[in-house]
Amino acid sequence: MVYFFGQGRAEGTAAMKDLLGGKGAGLAEMVNLGIPVPPGFTISSSLCITYLESGQFPPHLRRQVEQAIQRTEAATRRVFGGTERPLLVSVRSGAALSMPGMMETVLNLGLNPATVAALAAESGDPQFAWDSYRRFIQMYGGVVFDVPKDDFEAILQARKTAAGVTRDIDLPPAELEILVQEFKDLVHRTTGQSFPDDPSDQLWRAIEAVFESWNTRRARDYRKLHNIPDSMGTAVNIMAMVFGNMGEDSAAGVAFTRNPSTGAHALYGEFLVNAQGEDVVSGSRTPKPIEVLAKTAPEAYRELERVARTLERHFRDVQDLEFTIERGTLYMLQTRRAQRTGHAAIRIACDMVDEGLISEEEAVARIPPNDLEQVLHPTIDPKQKLDLLTTGLAASPGAASGIVVFNADLAEDLGKKGDAVILVRPETSPEDFHGMVAAKAILTARGGVTSHAAVVARGMGKPCVAGAQEIVVGEAFDHFSVDGRSVASGEWITVEGTTGRVYAGKVALIPPEIGGHFNRLLGWADSFRHLGVRVNADTPADAHRGRDFGAEGIGLCRTEHMFFEGNRITAMREMILAQDAEGRQQALAKLLPMQRSDFEGIFRAMEGYPVTIRLLDPPLHEFLPKEEPEIRTLAEEMETTPEEIHRIVNRMSEINPMLGLRGCRLGIVYPEIPAMQVRAIFEAACTVAHRGGRVQPEVMIPLVAHVREFRQQALIVRQIAEHVFQEKQITVPYLLGTMIELPRAALTADEIAREAQFFSFGTNDLTQTTWGLSRDDSGMFLPMYVERGLLSADPFMVLDESGVGKLIAMAVKSGRTSRQDLKVGICGEHGGEPAAVAFCEAQRMNYVSCSAFRVPIARLAAAQAALAERGTMMRTQATV
Amino acid sequence: MVYFFGQGRAEGTAAMKDLLGGKGAGLAEMVNLGIPVPPGFTISSSLCITYLESGQFPPHLRRQVEQAIQRTEAATRRVFGGTERPLLVSVRSGAALSMPGMMETVLNLGLNPATVAALAAESGDPQFAWDSYRRFIQMYGGVVFDVPKDDFEAILQARKTAAGVTRDIDLPPAELEILVQEFKDLVHRTTGQSFPDDPSDQLWRAIEAVFESWNTRRARDYRKLHNIPDSMGTAVNIMAMVFGNMGEDSAAGVAFTRNPSTGAHALYGEFLVNAQGEDVVSGSRTPKPIEVLAKTAPEAYRELERVARTLERHFRDVQDLEFTIERGTLYMLQTRRAQRTGHAAIRIACDMVDEGLISEEEAVARIPPNDLEQVLHPTIDPKQKLDLLTTGLAASPGAASGIVVFNADLAEDLGKKGDAVILVRPETSPEDFHGMVAAKAILTARGGVTSHAAVVARGMGKPCVAGAQEIVVGEAFDHFSVDGRSVASGEWITVEGTTGRVYAGKVALIPPEIGGHFNRLLGWADSFRHLGVRVNADTPADAHRGRDFGAEGIGLCRTEHMFFEGNRITAMREMILAQDAEGRQQALAKLLPMQRSDFEGIFRAMEGYPVTIRLLDPPLHEFLPKEEPEIRTLAEEMETTPEEIHRIVNRMSEINPMLGLRGCRLGIVYPEIPAMQVRAIFEAACTVAHRGGRVQPEVMIPLVAHVREFRQQALIVRQIAEHVFQEKQITVPYLLGTMIELPRAALTADEIAREAQFFSFGTNDLTQTTWGLSRDDSGMFLPMYVERGLLSADPFMVLDESGVGKLIAMAVKSGRTSRQDLKVGICGEHGGEPAAVAFCEAQRMNYVSCSAFRVPIARLAAAQAALAERGTMMRTQATV
Repeated sequence: MVYFFGQGRAEGTAAMKDLLGGKGAGLAEMVNLGIPVPPGFTISSSLCITYLESGQFPPHLRRQVEQAIQRTEAATRRVFGGTERPLLVSVRSGAALSMPGMMETVLNLGLNPATVAALAAESGDPQFAWDSYRRFIQMYGGVVFDVPKDDFEAILQARKTAAGVTRDIDLPPAELEILVQEFKDLVHRTTGQSFPDDPSDQLWRAIEAVFESWNTRRARDYRKLHNIPDSMGTAVNIMAMVFGNMGEDSAAGVAFTRNPSTGAHALYGEFLVNAQGEDVVSGSRTPKPIEVLAKTAPEAYRELERVARTLERHFRDVQDLEFTIERGTLYMLQTRRAQRTGHAAIRIACDMVDEGLISEEEAVARIPPNDLEQVLHPTIDPKQKLDLLTTGLAASPGAASGIVVFNADLAEDLGKKGDAVILVRPETSPEDFHGMVAAKAILTARGGVTSHAAVVARGMGKPCVAGAQEIVVGEAFDHFSVDGRSVASGEWITVEGTTGRVYAGKVALIPPEIGGHFNRLLGWADSFRHLGVRVNADTPADAHRGRDFGAEGIGLCRTEHMFFEGNRITAMREMILAQDAEGRQQALAKLLPMQRSDFEGIFRAMEGYPVTIRLLDPPLHEFLPKEEPEIRTLAEEMETTPEEIHRIVNRMSEINPMLGLRGCRLGIVYPEIPAMQVRAIFEAACTVAHRGGRVQPEVMIPLVAHVREFRQQALIVRQIAEHVFQEKQITVPYLLGTMIELPRAALTADEIAREAQFFSFGTNDLTQTTWGLSRDDSGMFLPMYVERGLLSADPFMVLDESGVGKLIAMAVKSGRTSRQDLKVGICGEHGGEPAAVAFCEAQRMNYVSCSAFRVPIARLAAAQAALAERGTMMRTQATV
Repeated sequence: MVYFFGQGRAEGTAAMKDLLGGKGAGLAEMVNLGIPVPPGFTISSSLCITYLESGQFPPHLRRQVEQAIQRTEAATRRVFGGTERPLLVSVRSGAALSMPGMMETVLNLGLNPATVAALAAESGDPQFAWDSYRRFIQMYGGVVFDVPKDDFEAILQARKTAAGVTRDIDLPPAELEILVQEFKDLVHRTTGQSFPDDPSDQLWRAIEAVFESWNTRRARDYRKLHNIPDSMGTAVNIMAMVFGNMGEDSAAGVAFTRNPSTGAHALYGEFLVNAQGEDVVSGSRTPKPIEVLAKTAPEAYRELERVARTLERHFRDVQDLEFTIERGTLYMLQTRRAQRTGHAAIRIACDMVDEGLISEEEAVARIPPNDLEQVLHPTIDPKQKLDLLTTGLAASPGAASGIVVFNADLAEDLGKKGDAVILVRPETSPEDFHGMVAAKAILTARGGVTSHAAVVARGMGKPCVAGAQEIVVGEAFDHFSVDGRSVASGEWITVEGTTGRVYAGKVALIPPEIGGHFNRLLGWADSFRHLGVRVNADTPADAHRGRDFGAEGIGLCRTEHMFFEGNRITAMREMILAQDAEGRQQALAKLLPMQRSDFEGIFRAMEGYPVTIRLLDPPLHEFLPKEEPEIRTLAEEMETTPEEIHRIVNRMSEINPMLGLRGCRLGIVYPEIPAMQVRAIFEAACTVAHRGGRVQPEVMIPLVAHVREFRQQALIVRQIAEHVFQEKQITVPYLLGTMIELPRAALTADEIAREAQFFSFGTNDLTQTTWGLSRDDSGMFLPMYVERGLLSADPFMVLDESGVGKLIAMAVKSGRTSRQDLKVGICGEHGGEPAAVAFCEAQRMNYVSCSAFRVPIARLAAAQAALAERGTMMRTQATV
């Protein structure tokens, strides 16, 4: 129940984190390594749950704690509550996982009117002794007695005014003595209880308070949010006090063994002379950079460097340290794995490989894949003062500042002139595409993380905040208002897509930086992974970008985006409005050369790699105009009346377009459409092949629910491919497969795999149908679901393994039963999400596909999944 | 390959239907029973496929046929092609399943210039002989040579005119001889081939023609439509001719052993003196009722009665007979199971049980459940001349005539005045409900078989034709046009929901008749079935009707329909438009007493039985007004502006409402709503229980995707139920369960069943989400899918067992693993569909639930499913 450490050896080790908590395990390990740590002991976290459930301590605990105190007394040659050389202790909570929001630290426990006098006598510094007593009552009163901290501060402030001083440290002992009494009175007044003088009494109440802090609302909410089990409990660390505030040869500080921001290989941190640790953290005085310590206390600094080296070598990772120097002697109070930026993580991992500290596998395994986002996108300079306007969904990472524009055409105009613009829309539709191309970032009031705005922004690598529900765009589209503030067109705002935050004004950014370390690390990753990584790309530019990021093919080329560009939309509308198949064919004939040249460009960009092309998917009414002026223009172009256009638009409108006439249903009702698209694909493929390019088209039939739908569309594809091969006198090998995006397709995968050569899981639509959840409409309640813990995550962001994943696993298994060499991939938005990548690896898929900027993340995640399977890595270590 | 029958014994039996076809098996069985049948033989259907695949007959067939001819010659003491007592034969096709659209019959085969003379001599009736020859060439020319029948008819007509006679039978032999030559010339002119004189040659070409008829377009289409395998093939029946046209002591006729229309126990049929069978069928002469035969040919009539009795006893079912009387002697040419109306089927089954002919199990097993619809709903008098306007989906069975009304309010007004009205709408919404109540039938231009109109109409037992896409309702709602015709408001039309047909004008109807036989049969059914049968009912009236039809509880009470009645909609809208929870509670407080009294009425109506109540399910915007005048009225009532109402309506509109804020999501976002509903349920239950009524509420939480949603809503239900029990000082036992209508719920049924006490499969929504198919929008392509064979049936009409059914089976299994006594039912529109009922039995569900008029059908289907499992019944027999 109680683990002692001190005098050069500890009963615990670093491996006992579950029992001792992170802090306790670190202290034990340091002692075992011979590093100077004040002696003390840890009460195991298992006691915490026992205490909370039964309301009492188990028998023997009291005796074990007493024995540990005695050993601490022996190690320090001090006496707890003694009137000579009194032993003071600190009490700190510490669970296995770091949990801010738990109980804070209590220092100087053991002081009372008798021991404070002894401390004054021993140190020869009554000011130090009384200040320590004052601090103790203040902390203890707050933590154990729940007295509001402000009440202590107010009294302290009044006392300083009365004494005519401004700094705490300048209060003379007499004033501090009065202050101690005033603090005790405050506790009595607030709680009706006397402040305990007996050190043992002080200690037990502190231990109880630590355990009870496990169940505060704050702590429970935090655990819920981070999926930490309530049964974990917290340990209690009790350690002999050392004093950084014993004069000018004393100090307290924090240090990182390397720079956690840049990864530079040198001690990084700060310290304060004549201070306790809390002073460094609280910001009441300005600490000095750690380098200065080399001059202030050269001995202690060298010792700190030595400790840092030892700990890094031992733990094989960067450490985050707390230390105190008491009268020139260094004591370590904490060591733990250091948090770091994405940049630093990559550099440190590479450096440590070079230093022989870790293997390439470990380097790859320990970088959280999402940290790469910081390297791939601009980030806000953390030194900025920010003026938060509102928060929406973190739809596409990165940050950008620009002037607010509400209209895609205007965004394009201004963008061409070189202005930085942010496109702000209630929601975006394919008609806004050119405006999004011109914008630095996109902000929408509606829509989720898989809305049009989000998907397109991610594809382009632009920051996007979607579904910022507090924003109301004015009807005249000349301003938006949020929480009483109004932001006009032309005003500067900053969109931080990584966090979902929107700030007023222009903000300084740190540009992305992809350097040698990045490529080295991903090179190692590539050598470990099994899964292929492809890019979702609709244009040659997208394809090039994806290839630059390491994509090995295109997993999803959405042909519909091609129909919005320039005057193609007119031909598309003619096709839709045609009265019969002949009219449709005429309009399609205009689209054919455009599609063909798109495909040529894409095949060239992806030469040597497979390109999966999805046939037309969205409902046709998405291509029709909605606003009156556009309808009038179209009517003129089509030589008909606006009323006629209205009539057709109304006739084609659907109540649930997501579940309507789209996907292969379109191709079945209007076989001319796939016929044109397939011809464009194969004519382009033959042209590239003629010039010696290796082309591998994979034609994908969307939204199949029944194998007969696939069979019917497959017939069209095969017939036209044969025709084109004969016309062009060349044959291009190709695959014919389907997107699995409806539960029925997954449930009948065995039947479908008999016909289809590959499956690509469209997890966006599969999530929509499996959950019965429209991604366009779920913004009205899904955020609330996540907030209240009804869902641990938005299933459009994090793959729902127990529902959607179950269908996927079934489909992969039964599909491969029908066709052993079935090629299987995923091309939904989850394709670049690390947990989903691991899931795909577990299903033995062939590849994942995602937007270009997610490709490096997927490469890393795929390597980690492969390593995890090999058991080379400690997964928890990499992801905590 | 060849099966002879004659001289009192046959090589085949009734059990050899697959090999001999229905006709051949019937003939063989009759011979074995000692019934007079002309001798002959059957060429097995397996030869048909061999011939069609290889293009030739197998060796030995020719010899076997020759031997069979010889045996027929011996049995008749005639010679095939003989110049004395020539043997003539008929050739008829006959597959195992009846297939109209196959080859017709050829009679009198074997006639040529020599044998016709012999026949004339033998019969002493040259007119008969030449008329027989003329008929033979005409039939053979049509069937074997494909000469258009009209060409023969034109020549016959010309010959009659030339001879100055009007009836065929009055043509003298000389004229008939000329006619024979003219017919032969026609064949030669049309085909370039001479008409064969050699009887053997005639026979083989006829056999080939029968086999080839198996592959005509017509036959293949028919098989596709009826799911008959192409591999079945047809047999050929060759039988010695007997002549009903040998003078006044000869006759031909058809007879049923009982009346197939009423079920009355007496011979029913008609005959013609001096005629061949084809004359009775063709309608060229008017036949006489079979009773007249008792006077015309009393001996033969008594013999026919004896044969009928023998066959009925032997086959234990009503037979459909063909017979010929040759010079006073009766010959049977066919016996088969008789088609019959629903009325007749029920009466016959009951009578046969009383006669000891069949068991109660067999009576139950042999009635096709859907035949009950004829008994439950008015049908169109088949003697009517009908003027078909258009055809839509058969959405709710029955037929009704009435005047066209386009507006629900007007329908209500006129209905109250006693006018018969048909409500015609582009589609219906809950706002049309009162108009539907007042209408005799409903006709919509859009929407499928599970559209609002269809569901509500079925619930009320009113005829409905939905999705009649040819209908265009005029913009002024004063007429509709269809295929160039215009039907104005106030004009009479007739809607036949059983077939989906719409007729112009008023039509005479046969009223439904539920008598003692019906109740007796269903009583037997109830004693066999395992599945409970409940009704989907939203009002006390629905509940009473369902109970009258034998429902044992309510499987689905949709609470939302209650909110549209009278001024409730106003309170509902106030609730929706309220700014906060308090405002919502105030409006809900107005609704509480209304809901409570609804539930009281329903509990009383279903006293002693369970009542499953689904909490509010549809998106709230369905309750908001859409048209300008209504919005203005609401704005006045709410003391706000129409603009404000518009703003709210727009804000609440959803892109895919089917996948939006509905079901339990509503209850989670607005917990006040379930709180009010649950209070109403339990207050009502307590009130009824206080008065001694046995109440069994089952509270159903809709649209659960994740178990945590259920848990959260279940908490509300349990807390409020406890409150009410304490207030009312009584406890009512209740169950708490969920509707399984999303794939994710089915996939995680094990988790959900740990919390839910029952599952009710909502197969409408489950089909929508599993297929990704909106039932509101699928009308644009689903009919085409079925037409082209991409789907064998609309999955909203026929449960998709291989997709949706797979999910259901998984969910039942995994749900019961978590909770052994999990109660499982189905409450979608499939609940009353016989195949789905059998599926539910196979899954060991506890009950099915359907609209009131489907309850008897479900009871019968459930009994049949149970019997099928016991192996008591021949399923094919019951359903063919």
